[in-house]
Amino acid sequence: MEKDYNEEVKVIDCTIRDGGLVNNFYFKDELVKNVYSSCREAKIDYMEIGYKASEEYFSYKEFGKWKFCKEEDIRNVVGESKSGTKLSIMADVGRTNFNELLPKNKSIIDMIRVAAYIHQIEEACEIIKNISDKGYETSLNLMAVSLLKERELNNALEKISKSKVNVVYIVDSFGALYTDDIKDLTNKYLKYIKSSGIKLGIHAHNNRQMAYANSIEALKNGATFVDATMYGLGRGAGNCYMELMLGYLNSQKYSIRPVIQCIQDNILPLKEKIKWGQDISYMLTGQYNIHPKCAIDFLKDENHVKKYLEFFDGVKKY
Amino acid sequence: MEKDYNEEVKVIDCTIRDGGLVNNFYFKDELVKNVYSSCREAKIDYMEIGYKASEEYFSYKEFGKWKFCKEEDIRNVVGESKSGTKLSIMADVGRTNFNELLPKNKSIIDMIRVAAYIHQIEEACEIIKNISDKGYETSLNLMAVSLLKERELNNALEKISKSKVNVVYIVDSFGALYTDDIKDLTNKYLKYIKSSGIKLGIHAHNNRQMAYANSIEALKNGATFVDATMYGLGRGAGNCYMELMLGYLNSQKYSIRPVIQCIQDNILPLKEKIKWGQDISYMLTGQYNIHPKCAIDFLKDENHVKKYLEFFDGVKKY
Repeated sequence: MEKDYNEEVKVIDCTIRDGGLVNNFYFKDELVKNVYSSCREAKIDYMEIGYKASEEYFSYKEFGKWKFCKEEDIRNVVGESKSGTKLSIMADVGRTNFNELLPKNKSIIDMIRVAAYIHQIEEACEIIKNISDKGYETSLNLMAVSLLKERELNNALEKISKSKVNVVYIVDSFGALYTDDIKDLTNKYLKYIKSSGIKLGIHAHNNRQMAYANSIEALKNGATFVDATMYGLGRGAGNCYMELMLGYLNSQKYSIRPVIQCIQDNILPLKEKIKWGQDISYMLTGQYNIHPKCAIDFLKDENHVKKYLEFFDGVKKY
Repeated sequence: MEKDYNEEVKVIDCTIRDGGLVNNFYFKDELVKNVYSSCREAKIDYMEIGYKASEEYFSYKEFGKWKFCKEEDIRNVVGESKSGTKLSIMADVGRTNFNELLPKNKSIIDMIRVAAYIHQIEEACEIIKNISDKGYETSLNLMAVSLLKERELNNALEKISKSKVNVVYIVDSFGALYTDDIKDLTNKYLKYIKSSGIKLGIHAHNNRQMAYANSIEALKNGATFVDATMYGLGRGAGNCYMELMLGYLNSQKYSIRPVIQCIQDNILPLKEKIKWGQDISYMLTGQYNIHPKCAIDFLKDENHVKKYLEFFDGVKKY
């Protein structure tokens, strides 16, 4: 197929970070190490290795280490001779003490992605200034864009366009958007940010099997950062599949084989222990443009398979 | 969302017909009856109940009855008081004795869909004339369009445009197409057929999770017939999910609830006995634009889950 995306595209693997939302970040070091090696072999541009939550907000005993991403924990799996794939971590506004961050020249981390809801945009821009001054690449991931009014979004993009951020993301948190929506949003975001040299990214969820199609749509319309996870591992219905995305990009640059191997050896065995991916309940939360939490709870019921109609009748009330 | 498809759209449920390719058409009457009732309640326009294969080509002992769709077998599950949802059957050129077909006024069937490969187009057009003269609605489903050269396709569409067919289908047999491809094909097909009053349909497969996005793309660009199956039941990676499609159409006309109920009570229990749907192997056959047969065979291996890399290395040779 003719290539109609920007050849400068950067792929970010979020397998551990978004996947951590499924298992409270209890991934074994060996698995994280294997995902990192696979990303390097596949020539994936970035790997997001977890969250930078602060212990003042969350207990180190209740979550796995990849919710906190301590410098030494990362170095233990990545090794000191890091090359190729860059490392990113995500930090939620309000759950991270950004003063704890080392200056970039003392850290193994390359990029910090700040996740913010609409009411946190100003704080997020402040934080990004701070992080940027420390020397990191930055992104701002504006969550749940499918809930925003046009005026709110315009105001937020106006502020973002004046910030020091490197990349801003369209985040379809609920898997509620169609390709037409993505096209409109891509054009709108670019209108605000392009002249500031800020890049555009896409982070899609798969509630309605649109994560891949929506990611392609964003790339076609000018996004140059795309998030994907191996076998779609991620909260709820999961994300855009890395193996699909590399198939689309189909360039000399990326290699799918290490991803297939990683899925076979590391991700498919996880399927027996933790659950993610396509389900009628997630499809419905996507359709109603609501948080997948009620579907996640529904699926914990051992007898849920006999109760989809009940869920359908209930979800309409949200 | 703004409606940008033609409000005249007709939905065809192919759960039993395409699903029959998974289990050699061994569906129990009760299940077929339940799918039919659900289609009626959901106000789905057509239900395709199986194939019209001839016993001179296939043994009635080796396949379930829905490969043959005898008039009395259909009447047994549908009843005589058919109303609402119309019935269609599919017939492959070369596997059906079309002389066996009753005149429409003696049959419970409304539409006959003729599946043909490119080299069978002339024969298909002849057959369609014959069926049309008997009083049936007709469609021509030109298979594996992703393999065709532009000249071949143009010639075929030229012939089809002069035929008596009511609907012609874009069939992505291998799940190999992107939305851009669908847009181009939709425009091309319509250029040839529109002035003859022939309608356009889309039949998508889900190898690369594009069946839903591609079906939407076709509708947006002027297709007015769309195939879908409950929970995606269908050969290999399966089809566009009916519950997703009705969510997209989101009209006063259709109702999703009966489909959710049918899936819960009839389709999910099948999942324990027969296999279909998304798999890395199907993704790869889609990516390489080849028939899913090698993936279907691969998945029969009880230890296939440890052999994806082997499959990946092998499939490139096809």
